[in-house]
Amino acid sequence: MRALLDFLLFDWLKAETLCARPRHAGQSREDYAQMLDACERVAREVWQSANRACDTDEPKVDADGKVQLPASTARAVRAYFDTGLHTAGLDAEHGGLQLPCMVEMAGNAFFSKASPGCMGYPMLSVANTGLLLAHGTPAQIEAFARPQIEGRWLGTMCLSEPAIGSSLGDLTTRAEADGGDALGARYRLKGSKMWISAGEHELAENIVHLVLAKVPREDGSLPEGSAGISLFIVPKFRPDGTRNGVSLVGLNHKLGWRGTSNCLLNFGESDAALGWRVGAEGQGLAQMFHMMNEARIGVGLGAAMLAMAGYEVSRAYAAERVQGRAPGRRGGPQQPLNAHADVRRMLLQQKAVAEGALALNLFCARLVDEQRSSGPDAEQAAQLLALLIPVAKSWPSQWGLEANSQAIQVLGGAGYTRDWPVEQFWRDQRLNMIHEGTHGIQGLDLLLRKASQPALVQAFAQRVNATVQAALAEPDLAEWANQLAGALALVGKALKSAWASGDPAQAALHATPVLQGFGHLVLAWIWLDLHVAARGHALEPGLRAACAYFFAYELPLVQAWLQPVLAQQRLLAEVDEAAL
Amino acid sequence: MRALLDFLLFDWLKAETLCARPRHAGQSREDYAQMLDACERVAREVWQSANRACDTDEPKVDADGKVQLPASTARAVRAYFDTGLHTAGLDAEHGGLQLPCMVEMAGNAFFSKASPGCMGYPMLSVANTGLLLAHGTPAQIEAFARPQIEGRWLGTMCLSEPAIGSSLGDLTTRAEADGGDALGARYRLKGSKMWISAGEHELAENIVHLVLAKVPREDGSLPEGSAGISLFIVPKFRPDGTRNGVSLVGLNHKLGWRGTSNCLLNFGESDAALGWRVGAEGQGLAQMFHMMNEARIGVGLGAAMLAMAGYEVSRAYAAERVQGRAPGRRGGPQQPLNAHADVRRMLLQQKAVAEGALALNLFCARLVDEQRSSGPDAEQAAQLLALLIPVAKSWPSQWGLEANSQAIQVLGGAGYTRDWPVEQFWRDQRLNMIHEGTHGIQGLDLLLRKASQPALVQAFAQRVNATVQAALAEPDLAEWANQLAGALALVGKALKSAWASGDPAQAALHATPVLQGFGHLVLAWIWLDLHVAARGHALEPGLRAACAYFFAYELPLVQAWLQPVLAQQRLLAEVDEAAL
Repeated sequence: MRALLDFLLFDWLKAETLCARPRHAGQSREDYAQMLDACERVAREVWQSANRACDTDEPKVDADGKVQLPASTARAVRAYFDTGLHTAGLDAEHGGLQLPCMVEMAGNAFFSKASPGCMGYPMLSVANTGLLLAHGTPAQIEAFARPQIEGRWLGTMCLSEPAIGSSLGDLTTRAEADGGDALGARYRLKGSKMWISAGEHELAENIVHLVLAKVPREDGSLPEGSAGISLFIVPKFRPDGTRNGVSLVGLNHKLGWRGTSNCLLNFGESDAALGWRVGAEGQGLAQMFHMMNEARIGVGLGAAMLAMAGYEVSRAYAAERVQGRAPGRRGGPQQPLNAHADVRRMLLQQKAVAEGALALNLFCARLVDEQRSSGPDAEQAAQLLALLIPVAKSWPSQWGLEANSQAIQVLGGAGYTRDWPVEQFWRDQRLNMIHEGTHGIQGLDLLLRKASQPALVQAFAQRVNATVQAALAEPDLAEWANQLAGALALVGKALKSAWASGDPAQAALHATPVLQGFGHLVLAWIWLDLHVAARGHALEPGLRAACAYFFAYELPLVQAWLQPVLAQQRLLAEVDEAAL
Repeated sequence: MRALLDFLLFDWLKAETLCARPRHAGQSREDYAQMLDACERVAREVWQSANRACDTDEPKVDADGKVQLPASTARAVRAYFDTGLHTAGLDAEHGGLQLPCMVEMAGNAFFSKASPGCMGYPMLSVANTGLLLAHGTPAQIEAFARPQIEGRWLGTMCLSEPAIGSSLGDLTTRAEADGGDALGARYRLKGSKMWISAGEHELAENIVHLVLAKVPREDGSLPEGSAGISLFIVPKFRPDGTRNGVSLVGLNHKLGWRGTSNCLLNFGESDAALGWRVGAEGQGLAQMFHMMNEARIGVGLGAAMLAMAGYEVSRAYAAERVQGRAPGRRGGPQQPLNAHADVRRMLLQQKAVAEGALALNLFCARLVDEQRSSGPDAEQAAQLLALLIPVAKSWPSQWGLEANSQAIQVLGGAGYTRDWPVEQFWRDQRLNMIHEGTHGIQGLDLLLRKASQPALVQAFAQRVNATVQAALAEPDLAEWANQLAGALALVGKALKSAWASGDPAQAALHATPVLQGFGHLVLAWIWLDLHVAARGHALEPGLRAACAYFFAYELPLVQAWLQPVLAQQRLLAEVDEAAL
């Protein structure tokens, strides 16, 4: 995988060009390689062996009410902080390394591949820290972000509640004013938060919860909708060292991703849950979503890496395991599994998904860098990123799951046993379509919020056309270039058809099919662009095979998925509830 | 589900017409309903509550080397035998009820839906018994089948070995001649058998293993290929009550379907493993495959039922759980999940898969009845059955898995926890693409052995055209009729294209895409045929909605999947192993 990462970062995305910009002045390819070396080594030596234990020995509440994890998880989290990767994206003024987002993401790729279950702890802490640095006061940063930067504390994000899942505007956690101090306006929080990853454990001295809640009006009622949401810092231990009123109600027992404790937390149940407001009242959701792009790239990248993990295991198995003969042939020696056509199809599918999804998410990270380092194309990058994010998150989640299922299939009965890791990859992967915005919500984000802006679609079409032009110049790529151009035109038609009524409720009927069709278009573009860039590179034959697979077996699906959109199919609106 | 079963059996498949034939003389719809009532009740009252325990408390080897299962599994197996369903398909001369296969399958549907893990024990015993009755001597039947018919013993099928999975011709278990007795020619078996479901447990007084092995030549070498395979009865306890040389090496720890113990067994390791040959030498594979059609219908039906189980849970959840509002609307009360377009899509997908797959497998069971009761169309039924079997097994396995994944998605985070049963359905379902012939092998069976016979394709085309004609007569179905006719023509073209070279190794490149395309064609036909039959029935609105979903969202995929076949894509043959 390292050779591929190097190709993607340095040959395709030209990471070194960033060193010419003030934000990355003085950095070099060697610096980036050094960070990747450290991550690759720690992931291999410490994380990989921790992955099974964090699944089989899932978080438990002991007699003292403490959440216990395997010792190997604690070692893994410690080793992660030792690489310094958690500060890679932070500004130097806060002690960060100020590395490009794509280097940070590439470093994380090794850890996500080795153990998503262990990854939950540092990942949430990094997001928490980033949010505090962006919106907190200097005192809040010093008190709550600094210990996380130093790797002593960890953090969480507390959004959902038992009665609300994706509908955050309906949350009911209350924050009652309680004066103020050097840390800002103080509140007492009351409510329950559900699905809190890394919400309780003994891995760190303290846990900094970032909690969405509403400040009641004078009559005690809560403001309606998301405009009434504010953001609060609610630590497990208060600055004076006393226990804050955050209590663990219970752990969720999951299908996979078991290494990360997942909690139902009560705030202010028996003791006061003191919290300090971050920024202005009513800004909570906007602040929380400030880092949403990176969070979604993180999920997409993690999904790509699980697909990669399954691909590597099944590829090795198919090369070694001897089984059966070519159709029509009797007698003679058996052949390896990877000589069978259908096994090859399953390997190419995994390769196309894993490597394509990795490339897409690194491309998105490159767009983050473009904005953050104020590159010449920062505005276009922001537009392109906004449009691609729902795909970067959802496509690897959906097709990575399919890839992990194929990995099981390549191993046959063995893949269905817990003697091999592929079944865990598949279970872990299943979460990715649910957390950080469900698949359905990504579809609505794409169609209703992003693809409804002509400038965003235009920015994307320009990029695709540039790839088409480059590929048309090469005789062996011309057919794919034409297919890609055709798919782009088709998706454009489908967007018009979906929005024909101008009514978002009507358009929403087509959100998921559009997400599917647009997603495969994006990946076809990524694959052709990779192929153009790989000319003469040692990886070219493999990349060409995956590209060929994608255009032959996957791209035709776009037409099928968009058919009901083009036909303005209204079944989903008209079907009677009783008929479901 | 009962109303649907009644519609399928009595309105659509006209089960009662079988009562006019000698094999079912004297039977009535009331007899069939009585059996279904008993199965429905036992599945609900005894099996459903046993399903979680058989997953969480998976089979374990105790200190005495015995395989221990939850008490609820033993109760479930006992209750199954009490219904008499295990004798439903057997001839009256052997104490069977001689009911139609479709009634037997419909009865099994309740149990498969309630607990596939408990189902393994009776299912294998029934298959074992059927095989003994078909090929055993009267003495063998009396000694080994009778106790299973009486519900005292259980049985297994021992095919795979550690070094061979699907390639049975390469098996190495030896059977050395050891004289003979009243039970027939006796042998001593030596070898290992892998993936033996229900291979060891304490549920019954004895376990009858049916073992594939090879009789060595005089020089001690084993005959090559499947022609050298014979079938042997190797009981856990010999007829004289002593322990036979069958030993448990270990249990496989699986991703799902944990209720059924799955074993690696050694034969003749320390003690002699005495076995009696069934029928003639070299007939083993043919005998084992004698009941393959029913075994594959059993898997397809079980897959359909897991999809149904997930559908029912997620449908109820989506009707009750209130969450969010219509796109573009702010404020006001939240709406139930099933008001959201994408949730409706996920429910319709599950309905189309679960109910369509159930219908297909009952249709196949009807074809078994046609043959077995020597109906006027027995020959055409045999041809149609041969062609449909790979789809009846593989389609529900693949799309039922997708349906179970959608059930998780409808429940969101809750679906990802073990507090809800949908995650177990999904894990259990994953086995169905692997056992009883992998997905890839079903594709080869379809394209190389079945669809290569014009008579079989012809028999199918006739049936489809009859449905097209019937639907064309109804204005609101005419468009679907035309789509179905178009898909039939397209699949016909694809079959020609796949076989253009006349070389099975070349055709095999297209086996899986053809399986996909043909599978969806079959289901489109099933759905339209169901719709025609449902006119005026209380179930019509629901069946129409699922039919509409299938034609709008699923059928267009056929064109996409067959594109590489029509283009005679050779990537899978040409790709270099190093590029995978």
